[in-house]
Amino acid sequence: MTYAAGRHFLQIPGPTNVPDSVLRAMSAATIDHRGPEFGELGAQLLRDVRPVFGTTGPVVIYPATGTGAWEAALVNTLSPGDTVLTFETGHFATLWQDMARSLGLEVDFVPGDWRHGADPAVVAERLTADTAHRIRAVCVVHNETSTGVTSRIPEIRAAIDAAGHPALLLVDTISSLGSIDYRHDEWGVDVTVAGSQKGLMLPPGMSFNAISAKALEASATARLPRTFWDWGPMLAANERGYFPYTPNTNLLYGLREALRLLYDEGLENVFARHARHAEATRAAVRGWGLEVLALDEREYSGALTAVLVPDGVDADKVRALILDRFDMSLGAGLGRLAGRVFRIGHLGSFNDLTLAGTLAGVQMGLGLAGVAVDGRGLDAALEVLQDS
Amino acid sequence: MTYAAGRHFLQIPGPTNVPDSVLRAMSAATIDHRGPEFGELGAQLLRDVRPVFGTTGPVVIYPATGTGAWEAALVNTLSPGDTVLTFETGHFATLWQDMARSLGLEVDFVPGDWRHGADPAVVAERLTADTAHRIRAVCVVHNETSTGVTSRIPEIRAAIDAAGHPALLLVDTISSLGSIDYRHDEWGVDVTVAGSQKGLMLPPGMSFNAISAKALEASATARLPRTFWDWGPMLAANERGYFPYTPNTNLLYGLREALRLLYDEGLENVFARHARHAEATRAAVRGWGLEVLALDEREYSGALTAVLVPDGVDADKVRALILDRFDMSLGAGLGRLAGRVFRIGHLGSFNDLTLAGTLAGVQMGLGLAGVAVDGRGLDAALEVLQDS
Amino acid sequence: MTYAAGRHFLQIPGPTNVPDSVLRAMSAATIDHRGPEFGELGAQLLRDVRPVFGTTGPVVIYPATGTGAWEAALVNTLSPGDTVLTFETGHFATLWQDMARSLGLEVDFVPGDWRHGADPAVVAERLTADTAHRIRAVCVVHNETSTGVTSRIPEIRAAIDAAGHPALLLVDTISSLGSIDYRHDEWGVDVTVAGSQKGLMLPPGMSFNAISAKALEASATARLPRTFWDWGPMLAANERGYFPYTPNTNLLYGLREALRLLYDEGLENVFARHARHAEATRAAVRGWGLEVLALDEREYSGALTAVLVPDGVDADKVRALILDRFDMSLGAGLGRLAGRVFRIGHLGSFNDLTLAGTLAGVQMGLGLAGVAVDGRGLDAALEVLQDS
Amino acid sequence: MTYAAGRHFLQIPGPTNVPDSVLRAMSAATIDHRGPEFGELGAQLLRDVRPVFGTTGPVVIYPATGTGAWEAALVNTLSPGDTVLTFETGHFATLWQDMARSLGLEVDFVPGDWRHGADPAVVAERLTADTAHRIRAVCVVHNETSTGVTSRIPEIRAAIDAAGHPALLLVDTISSLGSIDYRHDEWGVDVTVAGSQKGLMLPPGMSFNAISAKALEASATARLPRTFWDWGPMLAANERGYFPYTPNTNLLYGLREALRLLYDEGLENVFARHARHAEATRAAVRGWGLEVLALDEREYSGALTAVLVPDGVDADKVRALILDRFDMSLGAGLGRLAGRVFRIGHLGSFNDLTLAGTLAGVQMGLGLAGVAVDGRGLDAALEVLQDS
Repeated sequence: MTYAAGRHFLQIPGPTNVPDSVLRAMSAATIDHRGPEFGELGAQLLRDVRPVFGTTGPVVIYPATGTGAWEAALVNTLSPGDTVLTFETGHFATLWQDMARSLGLEVDFVPGDWRHGADPAVVAERLTADTAHRIRAVCVVHNETSTGVTSRIPEIRAAIDAAGHPALLLVDTISSLGSIDYRHDEWGVDVTVAGSQKGLMLPPGMSFNAISAKALEASATARLPRTFWDWGPMLAANERGYFPYTPNTNLLYGLREALRLLYDEGLENVFARHARHAEATRAAVRGWGLEVLALDEREYSGALTAVLVPDGVDADKVRALILDRFDMSLGAGLGRLAGRVFRIGHLGSFNDLTLAGTLAGVQMGLGLAGVAVDGRGLDAALEVLQDS
Repeated sequence: MTYAAGRHFLQIPGPTNVPDSVLRAMSAATIDHRGPEFGELGAQLLRDVRPVFGTTGPVVIYPATGTGAWEAALVNTLSPGDTVLTFETGHFATLWQDMARSLGLEVDFVPGDWRHGADPAVVAERLTADTAHRIRAVCVVHNETSTGVTSRIPEIRAAIDAAGHPALLLVDTISSLGSIDYRHDEWGVDVTVAGSQKGLMLPPGMSFNAISAKALEASATARLPRTFWDWGPMLAANERGYFPYTPNTNLLYGLREALRLLYDEGLENVFARHARHAEATRAAVRGWGLEVLALDEREYSGALTAVLVPDGVDADKVRALILDRFDMSLGAGLGRLAGRVFRIGHLGSFNDLTLAGTLAGVQMGLGLAGVAVDGRGLDAALEVLQDS
Repeated sequence: MTYAAGRHFLQIPGPTNVPDSVLRAMSAATIDHRGPEFGELGAQLLRDVRPVFGTTGPVVIYPATGTGAWEAALVNTLSPGDTVLTFETGHFATLWQDMARSLGLEVDFVPGDWRHGADPAVVAERLTADTAHRIRAVCVVHNETSTGVTSRIPEIRAAIDAAGHPALLLVDTISSLGSIDYRHDEWGVDVTVAGSQKGLMLPPGMSFNAISAKALEASATARLPRTFWDWGPMLAANERGYFPYTPNTNLLYGLREALRLLYDEGLENVFARHARHAEATRAAVRGWGLEVLALDEREYSGALTAVLVPDGVDADKVRALILDRFDMSLGAGLGRLAGRVFRIGHLGSFNDLTLAGTLAGVQMGLGLAGVAVDGRGLDAALEVLQDS
Repeated sequence: MTYAAGRHFLQIPGPTNVPDSVLRAMSAATIDHRGPEFGELGAQLLRDVRPVFGTTGPVVIYPATGTGAWEAALVNTLSPGDTVLTFETGHFATLWQDMARSLGLEVDFVPGDWRHGADPAVVAERLTADTAHRIRAVCVVHNETSTGVTSRIPEIRAAIDAAGHPALLLVDTISSLGSIDYRHDEWGVDVTVAGSQKGLMLPPGMSFNAISAKALEASATARLPRTFWDWGPMLAANERGYFPYTPNTNLLYGLREALRLLYDEGLENVFARHARHAEATRAAVRGWGLEVLALDEREYSGALTAVLVPDGVDADKVRALILDRFDMSLGAGLGRLAGRVFRIGHLGSFNDLTLAGTLAGVQMGLGLAGVAVDGRGLDAALEVLQDS
């Protein structure tokens, strides 16, 4: 592949741009995973990773990508034939419920239009109706990477509580953790599923389960087969900073550096930065005369913005043109949104001028693709950036 | 931790010393895993990884450590209640059969003394006796990382064939692949399990299943639940160089470089180098008046050598002294060998002078620990290195 | 210093943004500078560096920054008391003639307004008048980094030739080489001075002299003291790919990679890219209602654009605000231009979207600094980028 | 070049093995050398570099290799026709006096046998005889890299003082700084010349002058032409952490990390480590029945050991064989020692086991080259390492 001058704009909603210092940290020599130096590293990380989840409880770190952490959340808490309540918020929610079915679970899949989050009212309704407590878990994707819609977890928690229902609350934060305000403990989440390659600013290859006391209790009786994903040996070995099988040491080095960066900036500042970039992006989209996929302003994502293209336009052709001409990767429409949207990732290690360059690239690309857009989109975004 | 001058000697039997060029390759910027550049990378790697397995068939690459690839081999080929025949060759064979039991399989576990490999004669005997073909798979660890004993896979294959038994042959090559001669196709292996962090000279975090046509056929009817490890979506997406979920891109960069190094040296030369270093190490052990754990010379490992310490000596104390005094990590005795052996890893990116330094460190460490050893051990090793 | 999310915009006119692959190349282990592997590296580089200078003759590589290569050009070709003709094109031309004076040379310094290049007509006039051939060298800065004005070397060469004058032509290409079309041989330059940290996309620490046959001849009789900078031992050792004293090996690794990138893109494409980015930048400046420092369109720099701020505005305060708010470094006004201009570097490893981000940052920064600018500046730049 | 497994043994007496963390530090993005972040870095380094020189006074950092710092020491303190007293301690002392002659200085070059350091008695004699104070500087190479002989600077200082002579004392510590005890202030050195690529564990490309008050005073009247090497603008700009021309920023990053490592280990421990490795190396040489070049035990070098080969043996052939067979680089005999010695570098980032590997390689190489050596050389070295 011919060299393209300058730096590629990786504006998919993850994997995100990894800071150089994280990549450098990861290139240190691998050490003995059973030696004393590793034990110190492990203990430090297992403690320091908790605040980013908003928890004081255990967080399991898997040497595997995020899809595995989905599986881990299910197999550690549920038994064959158990029912889970899930919501069709988009492509990834659909994949997660597919996985649940494959594992032998029953799935109540509440249909959705891919433009809204999980509806707390529906949660309330379903759980209230479930007097037999057949539903063992409610599974929600916090930030739907395929749509740029964020579900309101505190309201869902409130709905479960209001229904007096014992179901566990399992939340996928793969594309929100470290980008959008999230609080495992305060919001009463039982298992939080996360990955390394989005807000944590790491390459893919590591994933997480934050675990409530209630979830841990459930794991004692859950009967889905589990070995690699089993929390038990993990938590036991983690006590002393070690892992029951070979961890991916070099990504742990990266995690140490990424957490340092996040805490140095301050989580509140990190969340505010993402929200501000999302607002500027929506201003651009509207300035162009286009439509943001998310319909409810309470559910706008701080991590990415999915943009509907006008009828007759193939979003994938726009993306291909932008990649070819401006060396920028944007996210494709997935599943039923294929060709109808493109997604702008504005999460992770990101700043105002890179956002400006990103939106300039989208604006020029739309123009070159013959999509009639108003050139004031970028100006509107800059106004947000300049004034806030 | 205070800085120790010079380079740490990581002489555990894996993770191994990662070549600088591999670490540098891994520190390139993460790219869009759905973009065209990734498709080229993926297609290249999925093709180029095959020769190191000795196969022309598919090799699945998991973004997860080796323990996961064990699970993958079982869940893709077997159904609840199926029986597997396994051999107590050491700690890892024991863990693998534990995993099989946890997954709901029946396990015939042939007892062993941890100083021999799987016995082809026992394979023959068990399979011949199994006229009902209750045994669905024979699981063998090619190179027992805990003992430095290598099982003779071709003879095991021959025993299965001689018994006319249809059982699958699943082989763990985690600590042999890329170090010890191995031939998936020629030896009729059905699933080869491997990891990144040993002979492949990569950090941990990636693992493999090489799959025979017969194994693929078995996967069509196997009923153990599988999602993350499922070959089906993997092989489908791999057709075009992609993966069904986020791959660990940066380790793939490393794999590309590691394969380049291996093929540049030549696999035959790689195997010969390991065998020669193993021979020199055994010469040192005998020169010291100590005993190599492996008892059958046909089963000596090219990757590591486990050394029995005299009665009354705590091998872990020797290891701790060597780590403290000479900044070298050696492998501990595992399971029933705890405290009774230490293991010298001589695999991966390794050369004569590093082996000389390693053996010098062991010799001095034994001396400092008060173990009465003959100082001619190192000399004996150098003779092997100098003359071959 | 607190972590700033995202990537710093280093838009000074050098050092420029170093491509990741160059930084990685530089982090390989240092090798024996007298060994055979080094000899191959040196021979390759000494050959491959020539095309970027537009020469088939020798190019000396100094393990020292660019200021040293200025000194080298003078001490290798001149003797105490010799006269050189120089032009006050800006800050760096002034520094170079200061250096010449310090070395004991006589300097004819043609005054200038820092908004024009060296005037070929003045060259003609001065040389024609110098019938005694007192002037031994004409020194010209090809691209004045302090002003963004490019002198027309071919016309200066023609003027020298027309005057029938034997003076050497010494040209500083520190901020033009690898960015702006340049041809040592074709343009009859005698010594070309260059550095690593601009168009060559390397960190600072390496500099160059390309040498004509006539310059080499001059060096045989030149009597300024020279040891470190002496071409003689350099050229002798270079014959076999080595250096007379320790070279800076790791920057040589970087040079190998940087040349690979430049030749892969193609020098003509590199020059066209720079010219296009310069044009877009000027469109932005004019769109803002501001003035480009360079007054003659034949002398617009492809590497940087110096922008005059309105009276009463302190350009350094604007720069400080932009650094603080948008994490972008711009070049300061130097010498007599202090506070009156800022300089936008658009050279080296750079692309359309990074330029868009850069110009967006300048536009927002000017707005925040209270400089009344028209928001259509960025739009005008995007028009250039989109349409060309 | 075909890949050689494992890590190259770079056992020349510099450039030395650069720690990975230094290489990683150097691969951070280059920053604006006129911006506030750089000012902080510069100020920190200019302060922190002093202890390694044993000075509280200024240390100038040149973005150029060590040969340049030789020139700097001379041109900043001396005038054309001045006389310097120098000693033929080996190849580098010879080169330094060649340089002095080239610069127009008169040189009193005391002949030597390349097996001894500069003789304090001769210093006393020459200076006492020089009642006219014609000698303006005494130049001594602290550690002769070509011979492994260390001159006794405190005794030389005492000799100058005893003679009541005002000559400056200029000392080359290129291969001793950071390896062998050295004290610029306490020993009354006027200019200390150093480089990055030996005990400082950095790649080549940076060099130093530590400057006494007396040397600074001398620079006010010294008249050798100087521009790039001029202390004046350097010290002025250094006041605020900056440099008068572009510094080599990425090597400065490396320096920060290297100093951190040195001070973390503790300079006294660093010196003791080197002395111990030198002792072990001499034990090996004698064990082999060979001769150490250095004849006076007070002058044994802690940084390297030059080994005389028996008559009839070509040391370069031995070196070539060792490079080819064991992937280890040793230092060649230089100048009049060509072919008669090889040099073992045991300085910089180095430890016991790497020394053991190094000596094993030399021992085996000698054996393979047909040099009759006693195999007990390595054993003797290990005894030193084990017992101390």
